[in-house]
Amino acid sequence: MQLCTPTLTLDLDAFDRNVARMARTIARGGKHWRPHVKSIRSPALARRLLAAGARGVTCATLDEAKVMVEGGVDDVLVASQVVQALEIQQLLDLNRRARVMVAVDSLAQGLLLARYARHAGLAVPVLIEVEVGLGRAGVTPGPAVVDLARRLAHEGGLHFEGLMAWEGHATRVAAGGARRQAIADAVGLLTESARLCAAASVPPGTVSCGGTGTFETTSTLDGVTEIQAGGGVFGDLRCREDFGIDLEAALGLRASVISRPTPTRIVCNAGWKSLAVHPKPPRPSGLEGVAGMAHAASHLTIDLAGALVRPDIGDCIDLEVGYADATVFLHREIVGLRDLQAEERFTLPDTRPPPAR
Amino acid sequence: MQLCTPTLTLDLDAFDRNVARMARTIARGGKHWRPHVKSIRSPALARRLLAAGARGVTCATLDEAKVMVEGGVDDVLVASQVVQALEIQQLLDLNRRARVMVAVDSLAQGLLLARYARHAGLAVPVLIEVEVGLGRAGVTPGPAVVDLARRLAHEGGLHFEGLMAWEGHATRVAAGGARRQAIADAVGLLTESARLCAAASVPPGTVSCGGTGTFETTSTLDGVTEIQAGGGVFGDLRCREDFGIDLEAALGLRASVISRPTPTRIVCNAGWKSLAVHPKPPRPSGLEGVAGMAHAASHLTIDLAGALVRPDIGDCIDLEVGYADATVFLHREIVGLRDLQAEERFTLPDTRPPPAR
Repeated sequence: MQLCTPTLTLDLDAFDRNVARMARTIARGGKHWRPHVKSIRSPALARRLLAAGARGVTCATLDEAKVMVEGGVDDVLVASQVVQALEIQQLLDLNRRARVMVAVDSLAQGLLLARYARHAGLAVPVLIEVEVGLGRAGVTPGPAVVDLARRLAHEGGLHFEGLMAWEGHATRVAAGGARRQAIADAVGLLTESARLCAAASVPPGTVSCGGTGTFETTSTLDGVTEIQAGGGVFGDLRCREDFGIDLEAALGLRASVISRPTPTRIVCNAGWKSLAVHPKPPRPSGLEGVAGMAHAASHLTIDLAGALVRPDIGDCIDLEVGYADATVFLHREIVGLRDLQAEERFTLPDTRPPPAR
Repeated sequence: MQLCTPTLTLDLDAFDRNVARMARTIARGGKHWRPHVKSIRSPALARRLLAAGARGVTCATLDEAKVMVEGGVDDVLVASQVVQALEIQQLLDLNRRARVMVAVDSLAQGLLLARYARHAGLAVPVLIEVEVGLGRAGVTPGPAVVDLARRLAHEGGLHFEGLMAWEGHATRVAAGGARRQAIADAVGLLTESARLCAAASVPPGTVSCGGTGTFETTSTLDGVTEIQAGGGVFGDLRCREDFGIDLEAALGLRASVISRPTPTRIVCNAGWKSLAVHPKPPRPSGLEGVAGMAHAASHLTIDLAGALVRPDIGDCIDLEVGYADATVFLHREIVGLRDLQAEERFTLPDTRPPPAR
């Protein structure tokens, strides 16, 4: 197999160990695992997580869910609100082939969905999204959740499955006890809402939360039934360094050196159109004395503290990915490596927004 | 035509006026126009610039050049170094169908290209890239440029066409006289190198430079023959506000409101996977009292200073694009609007890095 750069590479052994480690942590807490696949994207890779014990997957958008269902995944949560008529129709179509839950956070949106679903003769499984401090979507914790749960539970066309939340704001708290407490406080709003629902005879079967930055804590919290952490399987710099999670670097980008204008400068074809810089920049692997990097659309310039002869023009250079979620979606495939040799190719779907009709 | 959000929209009247204005400024300076299409991407849109007087286009990568040649553009500059064997072969193939120049900045790279070209019975047109202060690729201005020009001019398989540079570092200087001077100083290194080449009997037919942030100045500089500014035709916030160029907002993103968790919060489906935040964030159009925005992969949260009833769930919201180059490549098409109605669709190529072979 001849790699054409820039190309994503995946150390399959490291990936499989990361999958096993996340699965173990979550199972030890007695939780189900529904990994978020917004960064994973490939159904073939997602199936490796399912084989390791995941019960299904979480997606950010309906398009991502379509790819997963078409790739054979039969239990999917769309962790956002689906409100466009075309998308609601697609959600219903998917529900004829698989279990595809969706997040609801208002009565208006729930009733809209219910109306379409009844018309199609279906009952769509829904989770109520609870706003636990991130400041995005979701119902205010407490009585408002109970009220909505009651309405949705008795609405034809819907099947009330439970609650979900994303406590992502807690990852911005300094690591250690303070962060663990912030996670517990946020998730407490979710689990207390679940308790109130149960007391009001609308018991949530599922209480879902947790991302890569929080799963080590959320996996230990009472009342949580399901963990959504997924992207950590790539072991990017963000999860290892910013979140301090003990995972291995698995995802890399292989680039080609296209210019060596001076002995202390390397220019390669790894600009931000193939390798994200935000929220965490990438890092060259095995290159000593990196003094600075400049990121352009299609160029990455690496300035060195001292002169180096290699890598020369045409040589390859490997980089650790800073943030997998902002990088994988820019690619057409990931090349899986075993013992440094290309072993398997994972095709990535074209999930650019769909065209007008 | 039913738009499915998020979708890029283009005000065709504003776009055409921007094209005309850029063409006029460049023509007034007596320069040719070879707009960079790394952000434009659609051959159909590029042809509108050619119809307005552009002599050809500039691309950042070989893949972009392929799309342009396949879309009927017959004069292309690849403004970076092509060093991979597969890509060199593709460059040669393209040169059987169109004039596709490429940037060279070292003898080693030039000789590699020449060897392949001779083997194919072709002469590839090349420009020497000169490093005028950006700190990326390029030959040191002055005698080193002359030396390389002499070697390339007499090397079978190559056709020495001239010089190019990108003075992008000058856009970081404060606007006004200081920036104009910084641009003139940088471009002076290019034009002086061209003069030395001419004196050494290797006269550059083309002296090419200038981006959207600099073209108003570079168009006036002696010795420059060709201007590469292109992305300005979209009139994004970066070019209008950061670079202070008098162009109109033409490119927008239409999103759908998916949640209104509170009267002062709007959540829409315009995350950074469809609408870039760096180096310039987008901005909601026609929405009063925006107090803050939070960007996630597939969500954009807008916090308002005061309560608003509209837009409600399911309503559309338009945003001005912050930086077109970091946004257009995330999409499958641009919908051209005339009098607010969808008039024409511009398909965007899938230029994610090519798969392994």
